[in-house]
Amino acid sequence: MNAPTPPTTGPLTFGFNPHDDMNDLRMSEKATPLYEHVKRFIAETVVPMQKEFQALGEGHKDRWTFAPGQLEVLEKAKDQAKKEGLWNFFLPDADTGEGLSNLDYAYIAVELGKAPMASEVMNCSAPDTGNMEVLERVGTPEQKERWLKPLLNGEIRSAYAMTEPAVASSDAKNIATQAVLDGDEWVINGEKYYISGAGDPRCKIMITMVRTNPDAPPHKQQSQILVPIDTAGVEILGPMHVFGEDHAPRGHMHIRFTNVRVPKSNVLLGEGRGFEISQVRLGPGRIHHCMRTIGKAERALDLMVRRGLSREAFGRKIAWLGGNVEIISRARIDIEAMRLMVLKAAKAMDVLGNREARVWVSMVKAMVPERACQIIDQAIQMHGATGISQWTPLASMYTDVRHLRFADGPDEVHHLVVGRNELRAYEGGGEEVSASVALRN
Amino acid sequence: MNAPTPPTTGPLTFGFNPHDDMNDLRMSEKATPLYEHVKRFIAETVVPMQKEFQALGEGHKDRWTFAPGQLEVLEKAKDQAKKEGLWNFFLPDADTGEGLSNLDYAYIAVELGKAPMASEVMNCSAPDTGNMEVLERVGTPEQKERWLKPLLNGEIRSAYAMTEPAVASSDAKNIATQAVLDGDEWVINGEKYYISGAGDPRCKIMITMVRTNPDAPPHKQQSQILVPIDTAGVEILGPMHVFGEDHAPRGHMHIRFTNVRVPKSNVLLGEGRGFEISQVRLGPGRIHHCMRTIGKAERALDLMVRRGLSREAFGRKIAWLGGNVEIISRARIDIEAMRLMVLKAAKAMDVLGNREARVWVSMVKAMVPERACQIIDQAIQMHGATGISQWTPLASMYTDVRHLRFADGPDEVHHLVVGRNELRAYEGGGEEVSASVALRN
Amino acid sequence: MNAPTPPTTGPLTFGFNPHDDMNDLRMSEKATPLYEHVKRFIAETVVPMQKEFQALGEGHKDRWTFAPGQLEVLEKAKDQAKKEGLWNFFLPDADTGEGLSNLDYAYIAVELGKAPMASEVMNCSAPDTGNMEVLERVGTPEQKERWLKPLLNGEIRSAYAMTEPAVASSDAKNIATQAVLDGDEWVINGEKYYISGAGDPRCKIMITMVRTNPDAPPHKQQSQILVPIDTAGVEILGPMHVFGEDHAPRGHMHIRFTNVRVPKSNVLLGEGRGFEISQVRLGPGRIHHCMRTIGKAERALDLMVRRGLSREAFGRKIAWLGGNVEIISRARIDIEAMRLMVLKAAKAMDVLGNREARVWVSMVKAMVPERACQIIDQAIQMHGATGISQWTPLASMYTDVRHLRFADGPDEVHHLVVGRNELRAYEGGGEEVSASVALRN
Amino acid sequence: MNAPTPPTTGPLTFGFNPHDDMNDLRMSEKATPLYEHVKRFIAETVVPMQKEFQALGEGHKDRWTFAPGQLEVLEKAKDQAKKEGLWNFFLPDADTGEGLSNLDYAYIAVELGKAPMASEVMNCSAPDTGNMEVLERVGTPEQKERWLKPLLNGEIRSAYAMTEPAVASSDAKNIATQAVLDGDEWVINGEKYYISGAGDPRCKIMITMVRTNPDAPPHKQQSQILVPIDTAGVEILGPMHVFGEDHAPRGHMHIRFTNVRVPKSNVLLGEGRGFEISQVRLGPGRIHHCMRTIGKAERALDLMVRRGLSREAFGRKIAWLGGNVEIISRARIDIEAMRLMVLKAAKAMDVLGNREARVWVSMVKAMVPERACQIIDQAIQMHGATGISQWTPLASMYTDVRHLRFADGPDEVHHLVVGRNELRAYEGGGEEVSASVALRN
Repeated sequence: MNAPTPPTTGPLTFGFNPHDDMNDLRMSEKATPLYEHVKRFIAETVVPMQKEFQALGEGHKDRWTFAPGQLEVLEKAKDQAKKEGLWNFFLPDADTGEGLSNLDYAYIAVELGKAPMASEVMNCSAPDTGNMEVLERVGTPEQKERWLKPLLNGEIRSAYAMTEPAVASSDAKNIATQAVLDGDEWVINGEKYYISGAGDPRCKIMITMVRTNPDAPPHKQQSQILVPIDTAGVEILGPMHVFGEDHAPRGHMHIRFTNVRVPKSNVLLGEGRGFEISQVRLGPGRIHHCMRTIGKAERALDLMVRRGLSREAFGRKIAWLGGNVEIISRARIDIEAMRLMVLKAAKAMDVLGNREARVWVSMVKAMVPERACQIIDQAIQMHGATGISQWTPLASMYTDVRHLRFADGPDEVHHLVVGRNELRAYEGGGEEVSASVALRN
Repeated sequence: MNAPTPPTTGPLTFGFNPHDDMNDLRMSEKATPLYEHVKRFIAETVVPMQKEFQALGEGHKDRWTFAPGQLEVLEKAKDQAKKEGLWNFFLPDADTGEGLSNLDYAYIAVELGKAPMASEVMNCSAPDTGNMEVLERVGTPEQKERWLKPLLNGEIRSAYAMTEPAVASSDAKNIATQAVLDGDEWVINGEKYYISGAGDPRCKIMITMVRTNPDAPPHKQQSQILVPIDTAGVEILGPMHVFGEDHAPRGHMHIRFTNVRVPKSNVLLGEGRGFEISQVRLGPGRIHHCMRTIGKAERALDLMVRRGLSREAFGRKIAWLGGNVEIISRARIDIEAMRLMVLKAAKAMDVLGNREARVWVSMVKAMVPERACQIIDQAIQMHGATGISQWTPLASMYTDVRHLRFADGPDEVHHLVVGRNELRAYEGGGEEVSASVALRN
Repeated sequence: MNAPTPPTTGPLTFGFNPHDDMNDLRMSEKATPLYEHVKRFIAETVVPMQKEFQALGEGHKDRWTFAPGQLEVLEKAKDQAKKEGLWNFFLPDADTGEGLSNLDYAYIAVELGKAPMASEVMNCSAPDTGNMEVLERVGTPEQKERWLKPLLNGEIRSAYAMTEPAVASSDAKNIATQAVLDGDEWVINGEKYYISGAGDPRCKIMITMVRTNPDAPPHKQQSQILVPIDTAGVEILGPMHVFGEDHAPRGHMHIRFTNVRVPKSNVLLGEGRGFEISQVRLGPGRIHHCMRTIGKAERALDLMVRRGLSREAFGRKIAWLGGNVEIISRARIDIEAMRLMVLKAAKAMDVLGNREARVWVSMVKAMVPERACQIIDQAIQMHGATGISQWTPLASMYTDVRHLRFADGPDEVHHLVVGRNELRAYEGGGEEVSASVALRN
Repeated sequence: MNAPTPPTTGPLTFGFNPHDDMNDLRMSEKATPLYEHVKRFIAETVVPMQKEFQALGEGHKDRWTFAPGQLEVLEKAKDQAKKEGLWNFFLPDADTGEGLSNLDYAYIAVELGKAPMASEVMNCSAPDTGNMEVLERVGTPEQKERWLKPLLNGEIRSAYAMTEPAVASSDAKNIATQAVLDGDEWVINGEKYYISGAGDPRCKIMITMVRTNPDAPPHKQQSQILVPIDTAGVEILGPMHVFGEDHAPRGHMHIRFTNVRVPKSNVLLGEGRGFEISQVRLGPGRIHHCMRTIGKAERALDLMVRRGLSREAFGRKIAWLGGNVEIISRARIDIEAMRLMVLKAAKAMDVLGNREARVWVSMVKAMVPERACQIIDQAIQMHGATGISQWTPLASMYTDVRHLRFADGPDEVHHLVVGRNELRAYEGGGEEVSASVALRN
């Protein structure tokens, strides 16, 4: 028989060195006491504080403010965290010294994901973490003094204004908000939405992605500029909803910029370097989300099992009815697989740096929110109507994690990054890759 | 070779007769003008009314009442519907004469599903439809005069109080709310939740599932009793949420019954016949939900395509990026498959009666909400953050349809009905089937 | 709040008229006795004949011939079928008069799918059906006399030579086998593979897709030419396998054409009209496959249930273990949905014609083989190792249906047809559609 | 509002200690040169040998023998492997000294999975590995001398006779083959099937699971007995097929035992201790399969990408058509997740021992074959018909891995082990667990 030459196999495409430090996923010895401390602190301080905070909010009418007493309770817990040294550990290799490695932080962030307010109490909550990281890495001494310091102290909060309602923001080249130099000032015009936390009375500063150089090559057109939220011309049009919730008072705000003027020195790193900054912020931010999401998936599985063992139908505990045991098994398997992948991606960032590790980050960003959504959804189903009610955290966990499937890049873009990387390992595989994907991710 | 006797195939289990009327899924000729009329009426009257209704509600503070003017606008549209003969067509073979066959109604209900208020304007909205059907089928003349008449006239609304927070209500035998005869009165004690519409100021009557005969065989213990909502001892504890929304002012209420007394004659059909009544109501109610859900899936696909064609990323319309065309194709295929299945189930109810058609009903109840959820979710993903915002109906469609995956029996119970029916066709296949499944479904 | 205009919904894209004859999926009254006759004939004649045929083949060494006696047994059954009038009913509206409507045939073809040799016994097996349809529709009187007549009589068999090993044949424009006119003869050079049935000693004729007009517009370059299989230069290189099976003696042959000469008059319909002919053949062929596949899925479900009820593990019949009842339920639901979709597509072909119904055909071709594969796979899993053995037909059903996921166009191309049609309903939606998709499908 | 107490979260159920050695997934330093050596040896010796072996087999008629020259070629490669020290490294902590840790072996086994004959050449192929492990762990000196020694030397091969055609063998309690003591001999009667390798002319010994103590508690009824394959009364009825392939000459044999007599001393470990031995063998065997399966999935992805980049349709490389890039991305993500899970399970076996690590083993056994099947199936789809042909290894990889979904316990049983473990962590969660599951797994 005379057949066409069959395909042959060759070297595989995804580098892998068995003895390499990349495969050592242990938390460092020095971080272990901190990890135990954080778990204890969440149980003993954060969880009771959350209840108190929520109770204070009951019946509060002016939803876009905090209820009387709420901030005091929160600040007290923050002070306690600071005093116990549980503060700002999201920032690796920082001059400020608090940071952990990404891998060490990964273990801790899973725990933070299990209690809604834990991140904020320990000053590790988005988008402040990303903003602080950017300021620490590329800020001028003046910018650091003015904004990084109070953020690191937990005195103010911040926002990151990137997504726009009028364009497909998954392609960052589409960003249309303009900033034009007029003398020593940028004049900004445009519209942003889903600016999380911008409704918070404590939010003082926004890092804003704008187009400054429309005639430059596609990836040199954008800049990131610091815009104090009380600048004239910044108009908060209202809150965007997440499945009907507005998450007041922090909110996800819809903002219009009309001739907003800020000093020329408010640009970060330099004109046309907006994409470059994204490299700094997006890796850690994305992976932090995934870490916390694993904590949420753990919590959903815990609730699913408890419910399954506490109710009976047709003469059996519902955990043992139909395919429920298999659903529980698949949730456990996938949680462990996701955990290992997140640890590996964190380690990759530690070993290779954010830029080289970006495919690992895209792998977990594409994997974790999608699968965690399914686990939470299955936990809901095991609860019946109670699962979508206010009596469990499941509905709110679901909508948060569902939101995450497009925040910081939709699943589809991350799959494109991963798939393209695979193709590129073969000669000629990457030809169709547009510059903007490469830059954004 | 001496092998064990291999399995042999035999007669298949699901009856199917090619020439049978069961396979004629055409709307009747006489209903066609009505169908066209309904579509026109939705476009010309309901959709504008919805906008007006919503605008009147903006800024209304007392969320558990209707805003001034809202009811007037709604009643005007209802009057118009009544005048045009678009009223009460959900009720097949009714003495009252308005009803259509289930098949004819199926086509119309798909259209009703596309506009949130269309059902109510034409007096075809749940749970009134089920309640009216029950009253019409099993009510005494007095019960009909007192409750059915104003319901058919759209003068009052009603609720159906079945699900309880403390037990797995998917197994109806678990229902624990008790009614005890004391002289000429039932005395009712217990707790119900997710009682949809019970917050509506116009809601006057609840059909309430209670346990009256704890010593009878399992399927003879329950009764359904008419409880006027203003009876002493009926306490509305608050609204249950659906993914954070309370759907005020109609709501899904959590209700406590404390020594609630109603006349003995308020029992429907007779003591211990609660399950029997469920047979009457559940088939149509479930299939109506599925019909409307197909309308919602259609609308989600429409929005998905429009969005996919109106935005660009990486140089292409997003509808043409990655797997999106295939997602659109699969949505279309599944919508057509679901539509045919719903039509077939409706026809089965017309031809075989509700009881015999119950496996068909379970087939579509298990199939349609699950798949429609996925289609709506994919439409959300195509929209990015706008998909979960208040700017499209998608988030609210998603949570509604997700709720439907356990309302009127969770998916799992319907799969049990279908699978068991398959096994029963073989000798000995049904042995493990508990009585309660058989009865509830 | 000043939001961007939200998307609005409009008229839906998939035409649907409730009262239309399109929705009458009943088999015609006149076909009903035939349908019953076919079922009886399969049970009484085909199934016993299959066993005899198989027994005669045991130990036969020369695998590329039929074993002694096999053809006699087969021919006897064919004679019986012919005598009973169970012959050639695949061909609608034929002058020859045997044909049924596509809808009537659909019901029958499901039954044919349950017994491997039923189609051949009633002269309804691929690829002869497609070849006969093409000859009947576009053949010259001479072509009909020479090839259609013996095919209709079941005296010879035929092949369809389209797919090539060296190009992605899913895009028919890629076809590279060349035919050049040299005087009154076509001279053909190239290579084809997976030419089903070309190994059969009874196979006498191949309809061969070739490129005749490389300079014409893309969809006018191809022709279909009749090539007697014994023509000099036709070299059968060997059988292609289907998961290790070669399906001798019919086979799926790999064929080289080296200066193969046939008369100019052997071209069908005319030079450059190859795609046009595909329109004739592909619709029916694809839908026949889907019909038979439903019969296979039915049989798989039957075997799954029987096995599930005949074995016990951990104290229960395995049908009742874990998620098995739900697996059975989902199989039943999907079989009924697929059946209705196939009936609807067949009706669309009857009412609209093959060309207009092509989106319906693509819908079922994309839906049915994929889902049927899963059902068969689940039946295998329920059997344990017996499921992949020679003791059940499941393994062979699986590989056949898996093959179908790219035969006559891979799933992906059919989803492209369906998705594109959806987009086209909106202005500007179809811009990226390449001509070749449109033509091939 | 007075709600029922909501569920609260508590300690999670799956032990996890961040700093623990369990999380160090690095290959040991000492094994690294061996790993590199193995990769080199596969490329330089095994792959060419495979080609030679296959060429020698072409046209060989007596399929149940090796073709002339084949064994010589194989033995030569084995000698070379032995000489280079690439031999028997599957056996951890063995007195014989060759073994690696499970973790070290995991990295190597992935490579073995990429070349069909690599395992055998290095004496690491199933079922010999499991049989050798059992003999090494529980064999008497005489048993070791007689059977372990030639197995370790690669002089003979062996089989493991467990599965029976007449019962659901997924529940090991069902095993019905009987062994009765008659004086100093066991007399064995029964039937086994899918006994892999028992057709190999070199296969000399079977470890056979039998029921010896029908009156003992369920998990004390079984024994494992050494049965030389040439014992009188052992009748090989024929080969069982795997999707139509018989894998001659090794085969998966169907065997009848009729009054087969072996010495009393042939029992392993002791009467009634059959389940105990399973604990020894099943963990490693299962995980070795998973390791090799990851190698196969890697190879499938490699082939998928190469094909996707080498063919064009509709004007683009098919890797870039439709959802193909996402399919490639998901394959990569899942392969990395599976790899980490397998490494973790191997480490768990090293750290905790086989018994304590059994839930980890079930996790990967339930996860890996199912997902690898899908990846191979997607690679097939990317190839079109070539994917199921003899021109790529994909079809054979698919059927092998599909077989694995019930070999050594079906997916469902492993999910039961994992899910039950999850439930058991909560008081009362494990009540329905039957003894046989616990013992078998």
